[in-house]
Amino acid sequence: MTPSGIARRRFFVGAAGAGAALGLGGGGAAAQPARGAGGLPDYVAWKDAEDLIVHTPRTIEMKRSAFGSSGITPDTDLFVRNNLPPPDARILEDRDGWEVSVEGVRNPRRVALRELKAMGVESVAAVLQCSGNGRAFFDHKASGTQWRVGAAGNVMWSGVPLRAVAEAMGGVADGMRFITARGGEDIPQGIDPRTVMVERSVPIAAMDRALLAWELNDDPVPLAHGGPLRLVLPGFFGVNNVKYVKRLAFTAEESDAAIQRTGYRVRPVGQRGAPSQPSMWEMTVKSWVTQPLRETADGPVQILGVAFGGARPLRRVEVSTDGGSNWQEARLLGPDLGRYAWRPFALAAELSPGTHLVASRATDEEGNSQPEKMEPNERGYGHNGWRDHAVEITVR
Amino acid sequence: MTPSGIARRRFFVGAAGAGAALGLGGGGAAAQPARGAGGLPDYVAWKDAEDLIVHTPRTIEMKRSAFGSSGITPDTDLFVRNNLPPPDARILEDRDGWEVSVEGVRNPRRVALRELKAMGVESVAAVLQCSGNGRAFFDHKASGTQWRVGAAGNVMWSGVPLRAVAEAMGGVADGMRFITARGGEDIPQGIDPRTVMVERSVPIAAMDRALLAWELNDDPVPLAHGGPLRLVLPGFFGVNNVKYVKRLAFTAEESDAAIQRTGYRVRPVGQRGAPSQPSMWEMTVKSWVTQPLRETADGPVQILGVAFGGARPLRRVEVSTDGGSNWQEARLLGPDLGRYAWRPFALAAELSPGTHLVASRATDEEGNSQPEKMEPNERGYGHNGWRDHAVEITVR
Repeated sequence: MTPSGIARRRFFVGAAGAGAALGLGGGGAAAQPARGAGGLPDYVAWKDAEDLIVHTPRTIEMKRSAFGSSGITPDTDLFVRNNLPPPDARILEDRDGWEVSVEGVRNPRRVALRELKAMGVESVAAVLQCSGNGRAFFDHKASGTQWRVGAAGNVMWSGVPLRAVAEAMGGVADGMRFITARGGEDIPQGIDPRTVMVERSVPIAAMDRALLAWELNDDPVPLAHGGPLRLVLPGFFGVNNVKYVKRLAFTAEESDAAIQRTGYRVRPVGQRGAPSQPSMWEMTVKSWVTQPLRETADGPVQILGVAFGGARPLRRVEVSTDGGSNWQEARLLGPDLGRYAWRPFALAAELSPGTHLVASRATDEEGNSQPEKMEPNERGYGHNGWRDHAVEITVR
Repeated sequence: MTPSGIARRRFFVGAAGAGAALGLGGGGAAAQPARGAGGLPDYVAWKDAEDLIVHTPRTIEMKRSAFGSSGITPDTDLFVRNNLPPPDARILEDRDGWEVSVEGVRNPRRVALRELKAMGVESVAAVLQCSGNGRAFFDHKASGTQWRVGAAGNVMWSGVPLRAVAEAMGGVADGMRFITARGGEDIPQGIDPRTVMVERSVPIAAMDRALLAWELNDDPVPLAHGGPLRLVLPGFFGVNNVKYVKRLAFTAEESDAAIQRTGYRVRPVGQRGAPSQPSMWEMTVKSWVTQPLRETADGPVQILGVAFGGARPLRRVEVSTDGGSNWQEARLLGPDLGRYAWRPFALAAELSPGTHLVASRATDEEGNSQPEKMEPNERGYGHNGWRDHAVEITVR
């Protein structure tokens, strides 16, 4: 797959290159992106183009064939999804000087990143997954990027626990029920900011796991992933993990920004979004096979994949090589990185010549298993049905 | 430190640039390396030059200021140390076709990587550390690269357990006491191969943790780190983790290559290496502070660092801000990645104006603590004395 470890980050191959030839790309690369040197947009030119599918300059997917068995997704492979163009890269010139307005506490004020770094520090491994990951598998042609499995990664974040920040400011004010965070993107002139701004609210119970993070995988958070400061909510879908966070408020009500009121709402096909519908908050149990993907030789093979419980710990993963008639429990690999992380898995199998539908099915600690079919919803969110995620393998 | 996440991998700064200006570089960059585009040798041009110190083209150190708190060292920051020039990058063109000769088993034969992948798979997090890490801190000017703390990283490997390979070949032959691995480097003509070849032996008891690994941090192993296939021996110093492994033998005796017979032997200053001296096999307990390093503001600060037990699990880390008169136990951050991994740590402190000698001291599960002073040895191996690793901090 990768011809040379030396070459892989120096000579980029775009989505129309060797990767797409493997047939593993998404179906909806409608917009031809503005490309930086090497086939990737400038702000992500440091990523590994061979492992990525560029849908648009702001929606970049990791190839299914690029997931490994080591547990942590390198930031060079991590998917990108920005609702708005990212801010100018100059915001990273003085990371420690970045300020966030903390509101809804007894002593609200602006606080600089250098001060947050002195308040406390914790590290967490967590799955980062776009709400629309798996959208391409729905039959009803939901609008939006046609992500397959690669709008997800398992990464490590370091930052200050949000609880420590609230305590340093006198504690949360009375009556507050939500954590509301606003991103630092520029809002175009002449538009009602609420129609486009990235401001999301989640229940305040998430405070016990929330970080204001300045580090991704042991490096300062890159611009593409929300640097210099990102709200990290382990167990919650990606959109809630607000990038370049410049306002962090404890609020009595959810944000009235469109992205919260009507966006990221789960509803039947054909309906419009509304605040009464479930919001894309906590993730559910999910898994997918990563190797083999299309063909393999006759004989013994290790079937590999990744599995996670979403907001709950993972209990087990099963694998079927006959389209779901029979299941065997897979082995979990490597260290347990915690309840919000994913776990690589392996099942040793013998495949005879012919075609096999290879599926995986994960179960969380509460006994929730991936469904065989996922009910469609208007925007194609949260697909975790095991049959659509299965792969057809041809054995020679 | 890093002006821009976009820029950091695109516009390289060499060791003589901004990083060296921080005063964090090693003391012995005698040879001016042949540089690829951007200040790094070609075979590691994909690494993050801002986070590295190039001692020579084959000895590249991670800056102390580049270590984060997330636990896993990205391969873009991982140190490089090659005893011989790496093989031609074309060996990566057909990774699955790479063959290793397995000997000292009942049914010895050559086996291809694609076959190893079907035999089994496991993942492990492990500290990779050069035997000479910390050499610069010895007073006796030991010859060799003057590594400070950055010839070490904590990474994740995936590969087949060596035990599974041996079992697939009928089991280890009778009387074998060592695992002996030879690297795939080209040996110059006209030289007795035993004087330069990289062939190392370790006690066969290491088999229960050894992997033949094809993946580093979720990506195929880069050439600089031993791809396509590396012997990984968690808990052992780096040199034993043979790169581009082409011969894997269970042997009755240690290798007679110079690198085993006389190299990597611990002996008093002034003595020559000999097989009777201890070999640089298992690592010992160690830690170092990573933040702050030179200056910090008056008031609260988080003192950060990394700690590991070597071949034994880590029990605790203590931090002193007064040069060792008083110690406080630090908090360990993030998930426990297993007994061979390191763990980031943090201690919340208040530092008054003036200078402070900030030290860390780790203790393993058997109660072994880092010594205050490390006894010198001829080649400057295995330095884990806490006083030399301490940092003097000026508080404004």
